[in-house]
Parts: sequence; structure tokens; C-alpha cells
Amino acid sequence: MRRWNGWGDDSINFAINDDALAFLQQRIGQGQAVSDASLAQACSAVPASRLPPHPLVETGAEVRMRNSLGQSLPDWLKLRYGRIDSFPDGVAFPESGEQVRSLLNYAQACGATVIPYGGGTSVVGHLSVPHGQVPVLSMNMSRLSGLINLDKTAQLARFGAGVFGPDLEAQLRAQGYTLGHFPQSFEYSSLGGWIVTRSSGQQSLRYGRIEQLFAGGRLEAPSGRLDIPTFPASAAGSDLREMVLGSEGRIGILTEAVVRVTPLPEREVFHAVFFPDWDAAQEAIRMIAQAKLPLSMLRLSNATETLTTLTLAGHKKLIGALETYLGWRGCKDQKCLLMLGASGHKATVAHAIKMALQIARQQQGVPVGQAMGQKWKQNRFRSVYLRNSLWQQGYAIDTVETACDWPKVKGMMLTVEQAATEALAECGERVHTYTHLSHVYAQGASVYTTFAYRLSGNYEQDLARWQNLKTAVCEAIVSGGGTISHQHGVGTDHAPYLSAEKGEFGIAAMRHLYTHFDPDGMMNPGKLLPPELAEFK
Amino acid sequence: MRRWNGWGDDSINFAINDDALAFLQQRIGQGQAVSDASLAQACSAVPASRLPPHPLVETGAEVRMRNSLGQSLPDWLKLRYGRIDSFPDGVAFPESGEQVRSLLNYAQACGATVIPYGGGTSVVGHLSVPHGQVPVLSMNMSRLSGLINLDKTAQLARFGAGVFGPDLEAQLRAQGYTLGHFPQSFEYSSLGGWIVTRSSGQQSLRYGRIEQLFAGGRLEAPSGRLDIPTFPASAAGSDLREMVLGSEGRIGILTEAVVRVTPLPEREVFHAVFFPDWDAAQEAIRMIAQAKLPLSMLRLSNATETLTTLTLAGHKKLIGALETYLGWRGCKDQKCLLMLGASGHKATVAHAIKMALQIARQQQGVPVGQAMGQKWKQNRFRSVYLRNSLWQQGYAIDTVETACDWPKVKGMMLTVEQAATEALAECGERVHTYTHLSHVYAQGASVYTTFAYRLSGNYEQDLARWQNLKTAVCEAIVSGGGTISHQHGVGTDHAPYLSAEKGEFGIAAMRHLYTHFDPDGMMNPGKLLPPELAEFK
Repeated sequence: MRRWNGWGDDSINFAINDDALAFLQQRIGQGQAVSDASLAQACSAVPASRLPPHPLVETGAEVRMRNSLGQSLPDWLKLRYGRIDSFPDGVAFPESGEQVRSLLNYAQACGATVIPYGGGTSVVGHLSVPHGQVPVLSMNMSRLSGLINLDKTAQLARFGAGVFGPDLEAQLRAQGYTLGHFPQSFEYSSLGGWIVTRSSGQQSLRYGRIEQLFAGGRLEAPSGRLDIPTFPASAAGSDLREMVLGSEGRIGILTEAVVRVTPLPEREVFHAVFFPDWDAAQEAIRMIAQAKLPLSMLRLSNATETLTTLTLAGHKKLIGALETYLGWRGCKDQKCLLMLGASGHKATVAHAIKMALQIARQQQGVPVGQAMGQKWKQNRFRSVYLRNSLWQQGYAIDTVETACDWPKVKGMMLTVEQAATEALAECGERVHTYTHLSHVYAQGASVYTTFAYRLSGNYEQDLARWQNLKTAVCEAIVSGGGTISHQHGVGTDHAPYLSAEKGEFGIAAMRHLYTHFDPDGMMNPGKLLPPELAEFK
Repeated sequence: MRRWNGWGDDSINFAINDDALAFLQQRIGQGQAVSDASLAQACSAVPASRLPPHPLVETGAEVRMRNSLGQSLPDWLKLRYGRIDSFPDGVAFPESGEQVRSLLNYAQACGATVIPYGGGTSVVGHLSVPHGQVPVLSMNMSRLSGLINLDKTAQLARFGAGVFGPDLEAQLRAQGYTLGHFPQSFEYSSLGGWIVTRSSGQQSLRYGRIEQLFAGGRLEAPSGRLDIPTFPASAAGSDLREMVLGSEGRIGILTEAVVRVTPLPEREVFHAVFFPDWDAAQEAIRMIAQAKLPLSMLRLSNATETLTTLTLAGHKKLIGALETYLGWRGCKDQKCLLMLGASGHKATVAHAIKMALQIARQQQGVPVGQAMGQKWKQNRFRSVYLRNSLWQQGYAIDTVETACDWPKVKGMMLTVEQAATEALAECGERVHTYTHLSHVYAQGASVYTTFAYRLSGNYEQDLARWQNLKTAVCEAIVSGGGTISHQHGVGTDHAPYLSAEKGEFGIAAMRHLYTHFDPDGMMNPGKLLPPELAEFK
């Protein structure tokens, strides 16, 4: 059963080994377990619904509580401390586009706000329920999840947009195809969610970001229906898909999506390469990206992330032997781990890996084969469960990510890590912070930083710690010339920083566009766009 | 010197050989040369300017005449028959973004319409000057053409958006880089024009469409300035670049554009392969595209285009020997020519070509080496000059293009060709029509059809012929499920067909968006969007 106050299925635990725990304690001090609120306590806070009855709208306390938040750190704080302070007044589970339409009409008629809810995996507050007098309907899309059509000649699949990652892949795999979109939230995130938040999967180098995979579909907006036909490419004016991408629930509900699929790869490999230090590693990964080889993944961990990964892996003896070998080859304390993958036709995979390793070796890279890569692949959706185990040990873990052009990448990594460290130094806490580049482009890379720090046991204090940290890193990103998000989206948490990259004029253009679809502002208000007075009716 | 009433530089002639002329005469009859209007006649039709004086605005007759049209067939008819019936009231040649701003302010102050003018190569009526009481300012961007910055680490180049293809490539090549964007209009089309019309180059398989190359820039709109910073990718809401792409002058003037460049390829090759018939060839090209090999180009001619190409090539003996050989290998009357190219690192080029030829052979393809490909490369920007020579022989030549998913491709080709043939059969004329797929995707392909037919010598009659033909093929495209343009854009000629793919609701969204940038509708009115009453003040 899915955890109501943490990540994933409650039968899965990713226990942290003793050495890793000791490592963390040494870095940031002993954690102090926090006592969690119970499910019953959380549900008892749910007030009476303000929505009139509707056959498709459920108003029970538990379903409303379970649809009230996502997976951001402040969401977790609310869940764990029993401090959820706003709930949708009802949750609908539409099973067809017609039901979505009728629910939108119903919401319009009773003046309700609508929050589209995919898998509830947002880490930036997309799902927060606004306070105020207006009733709120959560539109849970999880039952709109079927494969409607698979065109093998055009390699296009049409799905109900609420389909979750594993279900989508299972339906495709049964016919020999894959979408190849694997964000870390894969287990619970939905196709529609990926599209409206511009998601990026771990193998985007081969399959593309969701922007490249999204070929067409149907959106039900308060003011009408948008049907987007599929074309391989078009020069006919504005691309309507781009009005949907990144719209974060502000313009309507995506009910169907057509995506570009690929036959299952004949071969899929992941190789690990170590570098003596960051500079050599970054130079190598940039050169490999700019060589435009048919790879599927390039992921580079900095020295602290490399150390953390090796410590978390357990297998002390094996890792010890590896480190001795790497030491002989010049990869010591500052060593950085590059994971590279390729998928597809056997010969093309072999060519891509050969060329990439060749470049890596020229930059002092030491290839260590496929074992670590296979391990990474096995655990790719399990590592996110670590958040649960760490919480139980009294540690919070959060991440932030951006993307910037190559000349800014290293500075961005250093500045973000430093900003986080300094932000908590003010309250006497240390931060264990580490970074990787998980998506690389000829132009630059995403910069993804993780923070582990201690919980205080007090809600207000932990929220304040998070706010200090979040503000510091977001300001660092903006001042370093990065986008406020490469793959998580904007939601509420990043909205204050959006003007830095869009400009006031660009923000106004977005706002103006959205009013075409949602003239009364009923769709997910307060998300994505920086707040303006008119939004708070 | 650039021709005022035809394509390209007047020192370049692409003469048609006798055999090719005989071939055409046999297909559609003997052409009848039309007597052209003179430059002086064309200029004498220019009326007095209605614009108040401005130091940056030229109002001479010749400059206004030369900026009044593009290169569509109706544009040619007007130029050649001396029937230009509307001219801009003035032409400005801004040399900076500030001058563009001040010119927009000036136009706003005197209630003028502004038509952005890049290289004047539009083939769909982007540049037509509206009739009516409102004065019209043509904003000729050709002097805003410098390389402002080249960042070799991020592989980004910032240009003045008015730069023409050859100048752009020359400035990059001097430093070892290329943009790799080569539309057939390359010689005279501009970077800004490519962006606002969603252009696609001949080697888009490697370098991407202009959508993928456009990384950021600056737009001056009547209501403000849009600055778009560069990021390798972003999940932060709506992509502002997408508001500029395909906007066809409706939202403002792009003054600067940052594009993604690539080091000059170590190696560049083009191979030719013949197939016995269309079905085998289409199957091969689809399989090659779906194998996602690092190729730069795939271009497949149907049987009639293959025959036409071989006839145009001259070298009767050589071609005869080739055809004998191909006949032995099963490629006879219905043979189709596939041109495939790869560029980049030597080993990657070799791998891509090897894999592609392997797939081609499995589909009965007969590779014939690189000679024809090299010839194609040499002539890639010369073949467009054929339009001048054919006109002199009394023939009109026009093209239409779309893109659709693979299951629709063959039907689209047949329907479009048939529609054109039938359209002119009504007036007793034959059409020599042939097709190629020039841009292929895993999902589908562009379908590009050429029509050659006889001129009548009478303006009204030739315009009517073109209108019949254009209407017939556009209706065929729309009913066949293709986009109204894969690479030429919408302009005036395709505007009536746009609703078929965007829907009324989508069109309304576009219109609504554009009013943010241009609330008074002063920017290129009548283009792109289907006409509505309010637009005709």
C-alpha cells in the first residue's frame, strides 16, 4: 500500500547501512528521530466539505487528506508533524474525458478551484490547496490510464493522461515498445504530470525530454477543448503543444496524450568511469556531450557525491579494493564517478560506448566496467526510498536542480553548495551537500544538488530551516544564471524566482496566454506564476 | 546584383539542357515565353509615401518596390507582369536594436503597419503589403547582421537577427564553427526569418530544425521588450522561445538571436542509393530514420523526381550507363533515388553510413557511391535558379510541402500530385509533378511536391491557374491529415487552412497570445492567422 506520509510502497524499505549512518553522523551530527502524526490524526483535521454533492466527487476525510499535498519537504513536514492546514473539499476520479468536462462544468458552476492531481509526486508545491473562501476540487487523474492506441508504423501511443510510469511501460512492453521516460519519481508520477511540468527522464539523452516525446493530445480547459493533432514536425505558426507543456495545471486538464515510443532496445549497457577530479571529469563529459554520440545517459557525480555513493553501497571490502585500484590510477580523494549508458542496436551501442570511453581516457578517466552501472540501474527507483529511512534517523533530505550553460556549471555547483551550507550555519547546523550533473547537452548541463541535514523535532523550526536553505539556494541559482528548474517545475516554491528568467514582460505574456484557457482563474491558482494581487480574490 | 524580379544573383544562370527541355515539352507541351515588365515600369507604379519623414526611413520608389514582395508564385506573377499593386510607404534599415525600438515607436505614433523583412525569400506571402488607408513601414533587417559573441565552450553564437545564411556561416567558419542550417533559400534568407517561420535545413537530421538551434535572444514588440536568456533546457513554465518561433512578424521584431553551433565536421559524406520502387524505398527510409543513426540527411525522390533529376543532370552517356547497371539490379522505370548524408567525427560517420546502407540493402537498395551525392552538394543552392530559366522558357514552377505520420505519407504524395494534375486539367493544361521526402523523423516525414506547368502569357489567367492549383493541393493536404506547412510557414497563402490543424480554439489562443505583444495589431496584419473582421480596420 502506498505510504500516506512518505515515499512509495510501505512494503519497500531502503535501509541505510551502519557505515553510511556513521559517515553521516560524522558529517552533520547524530540525528534525532521525530515522532510522526498518525493517519487518524491527519484525517481528523479535515473539515466539512464546502462542495455540493456530485456523483463523481468523493468527500471522505482520508481521500481528501491523501490528495492534499505532494512530496516537497514542506509537504513532508506537514504530513509528519500532523500540520496539514488545508484540504481539497472533494476528490474526483474521472474515468473519461467527458467526465473531466462535466466536472469542470460543475466546478465552474459552484465557483470552485480545480487542482489537477496526477501521481502526487510534485516536489515544488504544485498541489498545495489554497486557503480562503473558495471550495477546492482535486481532480485525481489516476483512473484515466489506458493505452488507447498504438501505431507501430508511426511509433505513436495514445494514453489516458493519468497513466503512471510503470503502467505505461507495462502496456507498451507487452507490445515490444518503450517510452523510455524514467524520472526518479517514475513509480508514481503520471504522463500528464510529466508533460505539464516538463519532466526529464534519466535516459533523456536517447529518448529526449518529455517535450520531445509529447506529440499531441487533448486538453479540457474551462473555456473550451484543445485538440492537438500529431505531426512529425510543422512550421505552421505557434506550436499548441508548447501551450500545454509547463502549464502546471493553469490552463486545464490534459485528458489524452500521444507520445513517441521506440521499440525495446536490443541492448542496454551502463559503464562507470572514475576521474581524478572534477575539472577533468567535467571536461570529459562536456566533450562527450558535444561529440553527439548516440548515448542514452551521462551522469557525473562530484567528489562528495561519489564518496557518498560508495559509502551507501555497502560492500566495504569490494569498494576498498576498487579504491586501492583507483588510487594507483590517480583517482584518490577528489575522484568523481561518471555513469554513462547506451541503448539500442548492438553495433550502435558498441560504437557509442567505444567513442565515449576513448574521450574519457584522454581526460584521465579510468573505466571500471559495467558492474556499478548495472547496480545503479537496479536501484534507480529505489534510492528515492532512502528519504524514508533517513527521516526515521532524524535527517531531512532535499534536492534542488537547475541547468546552465557550460561556462557557468562549475561555479553554479560551488555556489549552490556553499549557499546551502551557509544558510544552516546560521542556526548552528551542518549540511551534507553533494552534486551531480544528470542531464547534459552540447550547450550545458543540469546541476542537481542534494542536501542532508538534521531535523530539530519542532515543526516551525524545521520549516524555518528549510525556508532559509531553499531561499539561499534559489537565490544562488538565479544569480548564477541558471534556470529555476531543469526538471521539477515551478509550483509554489519556485514561483517567486520565475521573473528572473522570464522578465516581467515574459511573465505577463504567460499570464495573458493562460487567461484564454481559464478566464476566471479557476485552474490551480497561485502556482507557477508569481503572485499578483488580482489572483487572490 | 540581386535580381529584382527573380531568384538570386543576376550573374548566376542555371541553364536547362536540351534533353531536359525536350523532356518537359513532351510532358506538358511547349512553353511560351512571357515578356517581362521592366524595372522602370515596376518602379513607376510606386505612389507617393504616406509616412512622415524619419531619418532612418527611405521612401525612394526602387527601394519600396524591392521590399514589396517575396518569392511566392503570385509574387512572381506580379513582378514579371508589372502588376505590383501595393508597396510599403517606406523602408527602414535599422542597424541596432535601439533603432528598431525607435522605428517601432515612430510607426506606433503615426499609426503605421510594420512588416518585418528578412531576406525576402518567403514563398507563402509573408511580405505582402496590405491595401487600405494605413501607411506601411517595411523593416528591412539586413543591416543587423553581425556576430556579437561566440561562446566556444557552450557552443553558442549571438547574431544580429538580420544576418543572411552565407554571412552567418562565413563568420562562424572563420572560427571553426557552423550552424549547419541550410534551407534551399540559404543564400538570401535570414536567421530571424528562419526563426519566425520555423525553418528547416537540408541537414536537419544532424543539426536539428531551427527550433532546436534557437537558444535565446531579444525581441522588440510594440508593448515591450522580450529578453530570452539561454539555458540548455528548462522546466520553468512556458518556453518564451516558443512564443517567437512561428510568430511570422505578428508579435514584434527579433533583433538578436543566440543559436547553437557545432565545430565544423571532420568529415562530411553523401551517398546515393537506388530502389526498385517507392514502397521498398519508403520502407527503407522509415527504418533508417527509426534506427536513430547519427546521419545528417535522408532525402528520397519518387520515380518521377528521380527521372527528372537524372534528365536535368545532363551527362547522357554516364547516366545511360548507370541506368543499365541499375536495370540489371532490378531498378528500372519505377526506380527511386535516396540521398543520405552523414557529418561529424570520422568513425561516427563511417558507422552511420555502414548501418544505413545495411538497412537499405535489406530493402533491395542498390548503393551507387558518393559521386551523385557530391554533385547534389555542389548544386544544393543552385537548383533554385532553375526557376528563372524555366520562366524564360514559358514555364512556371511552384512547390508545396507538408509533413504527416508514416501511415499517411504515401497517400499524401499520391493525393497531392493527383489534386494538382486535376486542378489544371480543368483548363486543359498538364502538370509535371514530382515529390520527395526531404526531412524524415521516426514518426513520419515531410512530403515536398514540385509542379511545373505552362504559363499562359496572361496575368489573370496565370493567377487563376495558380489559385486553382494551390487550393486543390492545400485541400488535399488538410484532408490527408498533414500540416499545412513543414518548413515554409503560413503567411497569407496558408492562413485559410490553419484552422484545420489548430482548431478554432487553438487559433483563438494564438490570436489572444499575440495581442499581449501587439495590442493594436500593427505587426504584419493579415498574415498567419485566418482573417477575422476585426483585423480589417
